[in-house]
Amino acid sequence: MRSDIDKLMQARDFDAILVAGGEEYSVVRDYMTKGAEITKGIIIKTPGTDPLLIVSGMETEEAAKSGYPFMTYGAVGYYDIIDQYDDQSQREVALWQACLRQAGVTSGRIGIYGTGAINETMALMPYLDDTPYEFVGEANKTLFDEAFMTKDADEIARLKSVAERTNAVLQATWDYIAGHHAQADTVVKADGTPLTVGDVKQFVRRALLERGLEDTNMIFAPGRSAGHPHSRGEANDALKLGQSIVFDLFPREMGGGYHHDVTRTWCIGHAPDAVQNAYEQVMQALDIAVESFSVGKPTHLMQTAVQDYFEANGHATLRTERDIKQGYVHGLGHGIGLLVHEPPVLHHYNRDDVFAIGNCLTIEPGLYYPDDGYGVRIEDTYVVTENGELISITPFKKDLVLPLNR
Amino acid sequence: MRSDIDKLMQARDFDAILVAGGEEYSVVRDYMTKGAEITKGIIIKTPGTDPLLIVSGMETEEAAKSGYPFMTYGAVGYYDIIDQYDDQSQREVALWQACLRQAGVTSGRIGIYGTGAINETMALMPYLDDTPYEFVGEANKTLFDEAFMTKDADEIARLKSVAERTNAVLQATWDYIAGHHAQADTVVKADGTPLTVGDVKQFVRRALLERGLEDTNMIFAPGRSAGHPHSRGEANDALKLGQSIVFDLFPREMGGGYHHDVTRTWCIGHAPDAVQNAYEQVMQALDIAVESFSVGKPTHLMQTAVQDYFEANGHATLRTERDIKQGYVHGLGHGIGLLVHEPPVLHHYNRDDVFAIGNCLTIEPGLYYPDDGYGVRIEDTYVVTENGELISITPFKKDLVLPLNR
Repeated sequence: MRSDIDKLMQARDFDAILVAGGEEYSVVRDYMTKGAEITKGIIIKTPGTDPLLIVSGMETEEAAKSGYPFMTYGAVGYYDIIDQYDDQSQREVALWQACLRQAGVTSGRIGIYGTGAINETMALMPYLDDTPYEFVGEANKTLFDEAFMTKDADEIARLKSVAERTNAVLQATWDYIAGHHAQADTVVKADGTPLTVGDVKQFVRRALLERGLEDTNMIFAPGRSAGHPHSRGEANDALKLGQSIVFDLFPREMGGGYHHDVTRTWCIGHAPDAVQNAYEQVMQALDIAVESFSVGKPTHLMQTAVQDYFEANGHATLRTERDIKQGYVHGLGHGIGLLVHEPPVLHHYNRDDVFAIGNCLTIEPGLYYPDDGYGVRIEDTYVVTENGELISITPFKKDLVLPLNR
Repeated sequence: MRSDIDKLMQARDFDAILVAGGEEYSVVRDYMTKGAEITKGIIIKTPGTDPLLIVSGMETEEAAKSGYPFMTYGAVGYYDIIDQYDDQSQREVALWQACLRQAGVTSGRIGIYGTGAINETMALMPYLDDTPYEFVGEANKTLFDEAFMTKDADEIARLKSVAERTNAVLQATWDYIAGHHAQADTVVKADGTPLTVGDVKQFVRRALLERGLEDTNMIFAPGRSAGHPHSRGEANDALKLGQSIVFDLFPREMGGGYHHDVTRTWCIGHAPDAVQNAYEQVMQALDIAVESFSVGKPTHLMQTAVQDYFEANGHATLRTERDIKQGYVHGLGHGIGLLVHEPPVLHHYNRDDVFAIGNCLTIEPGLYYPDDGYGVRIEDTYVVTENGELISITPFKKDLVLPLNR
C-alpha cells in the first residue's frame, strides 16, 4: 500500500523514484499525487519525504490540490533546456536531471515509472547513459505492482463506495430489462421495436453517470458473443428470450480512479438446459474458489482448484490445451484498484503471488461454448479483511433467469 | 493521413512497423485497426500490405471487426515462449520477433510504436539488441505525428459529426443556465439553492452521453479559476453574476475516437469592463490569427502575429517573459483528431510545422489575470479544405454575456 513505498524503494536500493509520462491518464501519477488532475508533469520522491511535483505553469492550481510541494518547469530551468537542445529526448532527460537536482538527488539509482509512448521512451535511452544517475526501468513485479497489491483504509472505502454504486446500477438494469415484454422470442419496447444491446448499454451508462461513475467499455454480450469472453456485444443485436447474456461491468470513478468489477449471466424469460447446467457448474466453481482461500496461500492454487473441478466435469482448460476456444478459457481473477487488472494474478502461470490482508481482487470462473451459442461467467469483487476473511463487496443476486414483468 | 503510411515508412527506411502496448486505450492501435476494440495485441505492418493483428484467443471476434488479417498469440508460438522465459521482457521481445517472422520479416529496420509503461519499455532494451532486427523508437516528428497531421475524408466526416453534436451540447448548456434566476449575485435553482459548477458539468456529461460522446475532463472554471488556463473548476463553487467563466469542452466519441475542442467565455447577466475589454481583444486576436492563415505558411507565424497584437496592447506573452502567470500564457492551438493535442503545433517554439490541406486544428487565444479574478479564452476547431480555405466547424455563437431568462 501507499505507506509501503519507502520500504519498497529501500528493497530496490533506489535513491529516488521519478514518474514521467504523456498527457494520458496515468494510474501511477494518480497514486503519487492523490488524484491531482495535472496534465503531464514530473513527480520525484526521495526516501522519507513527500513527493515533489514539477508541472507546467498552467497546472499549478491543480498541483496544489495534492497537498504536496510543487514548482513549475520554468523554476527548474526548463526554458534554458529548450534553448540548449532541439531534440525532444535530450530535453526530457535534461528535465529529469534538473528535477532530481531540485529534489537534492545528484547521483544514485533512480526508479522510472509512468505511462508514455513506447517510441519516445526508446529514444531517451542513449541519453540516459550520459548522466550521473543509474536509471532503472523495472518489468516483472514492479514497485507499484507490489504497492497496489494491498490497499489502505482510504482505498478500501473508495472501492466499497464504487461497489455500492455499481450494485445499484445492476439492480436498475435488471429492473429496466424486466420492465419490457416479449413478442415471440424477442424482447420489445413499448413501441414494439426490439430492445437492443445498444439500448441496454446506454441505460447502463446513464445509470453510472448519475452515480458519479464512468463505463470503461462494458461487455453486454448475448448468445454466440457470450461464448467469446472479450466480445463487447453488438449494439444492434436484439435481446432474445432464452439466450445467455454475459454482462461484465467494470466502471471507475469519473475521470479516473478506483474500479469495481462484476459479471452476471442472465437468460431472459427462461434458461436452456445447457446454459442452466453450465451456470450451476460455474456457481460451484466459484464456491470451490472461495472455500480454497486462505491468507498466505499462493494464488495459483485457487486457479488450479477450479481447473481440477472443470476438468473433472469434462471441460477443457488452459492447463489441458493452451490455445483453446471453448471450455474454461481464461485465468480465475485479478487484483483491482486504480487499474481494473492489477496484481495479485490468479492464474496457474503465476507462481509468485500469495493472498494477503488488504488484497482487493476478483474471482470470475466461466464456461464458453461459442459454437453452441452460449457462455456463462460469474464474477464478484472481494476484499481480504484485517482478520483474514475473504468478503464479497458485490452482494447483487446471481440469478440466471431474469423474468419479464409484463 | 492513413494512406501516407507506406510513403512515411519508406522515408524512414522501415521494413515494418510494430505496434505494441498495454491495456490502456491507444490512439495508434485505434488508427491501425480502424477502431477494433482489442485489449493489448501486436500489430505488424509491412510495405504495401494491410496490418496483421496478433491477439489473445479471447480477442479474435473484436480483431475480426477490423477487416484485417488476424491470428492468436498461440498460433505464433507464444505458449512456447512462456515456457522458455520467466522474464516478462524476454517474453515480449520473443513475441515481437515471432510476430515479425509471421509477417515474413526476418531482419531489417522496425519502427516501434504504441503506449505502455515507461519502465517496461526500458526493461526491453537490452534484449532488443540481441535480435536480427534494428528496432527504432522515434521521438520528435514521428511517423504517426506526420500521418495525423492531415485527415482523409472519412476522418473529416467523423470530426464534423463530433463537432455538430458538441455544438448542440453548447446550445443545451447555454439554455440550461439561462433557465435559472439570480438571488443577489448568485445563480440559483428552483429550490433556491445555488447552481454550482458540479451541476453544470453533470448536465454537460448527460448531454454528451445522449449524443454518443464522452467528456475527457472539461474545464468549467469561473472567476479566479478562469485565470488559470488548466484549472478544471471546483464542483462546489456557485455561479455568480458578472464572473467570467471559461468553458473548454473537448469530448470524443464514446470509448475512444475523434475529438472536438471548443472554448467559450461566458459572463452570466453582465460583464465587468475589464472582462469585456479582454474579450474584445481575444476576439480581435482570433480574427488576426484566421486572417494570417494560408496553406504552406509556417504555423508559428500565426502565434507570433497574435503575440505581436497582445504585446502591443500591453500584455505579457511567453515571448516576452517565459514563466508567466498572467497575460497571454500559452500556445495558440494544436491539431486535433484521435488525440486532443496532436500536430500541427501553433507555437513560436515550433519552427517545423506548416499549414496544409487536410489539417484539422484549433485556434485558441486567451488572456488571463488570475489576481484580478478573471480569464478569457475563445477557441474554435477548423478544417483546411481541399481548396485551401480555413473553415470553422464550431459555429456556436461567441457571445460573452449569457442573460438569465427569468
